Amino acid sequence: MQPIEWRDGALRFVDQTLLPGKVHYVETRDPDDVAAAIRSLALRGAPLIGIAAAYALALAHRQGRDLRPVADALAATRPTAVNLRWALDRVLAAADHESEAVRIHDEQIAADERMGELGAALIPDHATVLTHCNAGALATGGIGSALGVIKTAHRQARAVRVLVDETRPLLQGARLTAWELAAEGIPYEIIVDSAAAGLIACGSVQAVIVGADRIAANGDAANKVGTYALALAARAHEVPLYVVAPWSTVDAATPTGSGITIEDRAEPEVLYVAGTRVAPEGATARNPAFDVTPAALVTAIVTERGVLRPPYGPAIASLSSEPAVAR
Amino acid sequence: MQPIEWRDGALRFVDQTLLPGKVHYVETRDPDDVAAAIRSLALRGAPLIGIAAAYALALAHRQGRDLRPVADALAATRPTAVNLRWALDRVLAAADHESEAVRIHDEQIAADERMGELGAALIPDHATVLTHCNAGALATGGIGSALGVIKTAHRQARAVRVLVDETRPLLQGARLTAWELAAEGIPYEIIVDSAAAGLIACGSVQAVIVGADRIAANGDAANKVGTYALALAARAHEVPLYVVAPWSTVDAATPTGSGITIEDRAEPEVLYVAGTRVAPEGATARNPAFDVTPAALVTAIVTERGVLRPPYGPAIASLSSEPAVAR
Repeated sequence: MQPIEWRDGALRFVDQTLLPGKVHYVETRDPDDVAAAIRSLALRGAPLIGIAAAYALALAHRQGRDLRPVADALAATRPTAVNLRWALDRVLAAADHESEAVRIHDEQIAADERMGELGAALIPDHATVLTHCNAGALATGGIGSALGVIKTAHRQARAVRVLVDETRPLLQGARLTAWELAAEGIPYEIIVDSAAAGLIACGSVQAVIVGADRIAANGDAANKVGTYALALAARAHEVPLYVVAPWSTVDAATPTGSGITIEDRAEPEVLYVAGTRVAPEGATARNPAFDVTPAALVTAIVTERGVLRPPYGPAIASLSSEPAVAR
Repeated sequence: MQPIEWRDGALRFVDQTLLPGKVHYVETRDPDDVAAAIRSLALRGAPLIGIAAAYALALAHRQGRDLRPVADALAATRPTAVNLRWALDRVLAAADHESEAVRIHDEQIAADERMGELGAALIPDHATVLTHCNAGALATGGIGSALGVIKTAHRQARAVRVLVDETRPLLQGARLTAWELAAEGIPYEIIVDSAAAGLIACGSVQAVIVGADRIAANGDAANKVGTYALALAARAHEVPLYVVAPWSTVDAATPTGSGITIEDRAEPEVLYVAGTRVAPEGATARNPAFDVTPAALVTAIVTERGVLRPPYGPAIASLSSEPAVAR
């Protein structure tokens, strides 16, 4: 399964809203289709939407369109992940737009492998790790960030087991992470999100591993809503919390998490589950898609440039000037 | 709407699994039907299942059955709520089983009113309070415990608003609490459970108010899974957490929360949502129905005997010898 592929000037991707029931590939040459797919979460995951947006600009270039307004429309699809703007800026600035999009994708695949190695070294043998949402192949186009760490530990025969937060409202854990783990033969159990704290308290979890959608200059990390509650529970019971994300997720221009825009999504995602209305008629909902975990609760940030430890401000500043690896 | 009623020697109750879509009353003279309804959560809420079990024994007495095995079967339906065994023991010991069941129900109605008054005094005007699961009329047969406090504050024109955790897996918040609040005209919004911590961090919540299924002698409180995560978030942001429960929920014979049996429920509650399978075929789940919030995170425990403050051990011990009110 390739979540995203560039083929003969067209973009082919899996519609993630239909997983795990159906593996449906969409093929398009229209950048507007890509924008719509990002908005609907058919394409999702901070690194993957960056890659998809980069390819969308390549499609727009092939159509002979003015790239600037297309890039602005793509950037507006989702406000929290910084990878989106980062990838668009790279493609806009490149002499060869198409090659740059392919390069962004290739770099992510290499970054995932490197994060996998660095992160797996942090996981004890026979550990049960808990993860939230989907930070896997479906989120990055490589082996995944947080899930890449778990897959690498598994490939090293380290006997890792996984507790998967189902991740309401859109159930990326139950639908996508479970599906990826099953494909790898990694043992896992699904839990409702709110069961995590009690299981951490009972000693059932040796590490919490999550991805990120944006990391501020001080190490505060925005990730799928629910991550902050996990971080509080992990800290209360001295369980390490690892944030695994490519360097493109680091937003050195945003000093702290309070500067990160949190996307509010539509109410029906909460009021309906799997197409069935669960709330009474007339009910309203609040639906923040992300929350911010303060750097003080993060044990380490795993990037392809290295494993960052607190204090994150200096660690991020010192690595920010490094050239990208794996070019 | 009466969630439970004793009428001419029969028990009539609302099947809560069908709410809010359908208000369906079940009428039975068979105690085995009551046990099945408790098991399936057609009847739920710690005080309400105590009342239902008490009436079930009255039904068994009318059938001329040996009460002891019927009581044991009812006690075995759900292991966490201590009200169940407490109500059964009271009915078994009474000379007139039927009158005792009615008395338990009447006392709960009175206890709810008293808890409502005591608890409402703790809620600031114009507060947004966050609640989890359903600790309302559907959980007690009166005005509710935690929800009774909110209803009382609303009746006092205190301009209370509510954030309702949807409460996966069985969505008692989105289905039942939302329904009760709508009926009272109390403004509310539904959130996914894992959004609570981020909203508390943003200052959107002035108090967290929950019920309990069992309170140990030291004040540790078992409640619907997810309560512990709320308690951690509330403490991290100095938001008060109030546990509201009738005295019958206090289990003075269990010294601490570690002695409370946590019910593990069936996997399909997690793997399916509203009848639709969301997880891949072959997936497994863990489904603890409760978690324990340590007494140290509880700001106050509101009972009909008074508002308890830490340290809870002496507070519980001193009130344990009081006779029940409202006999």
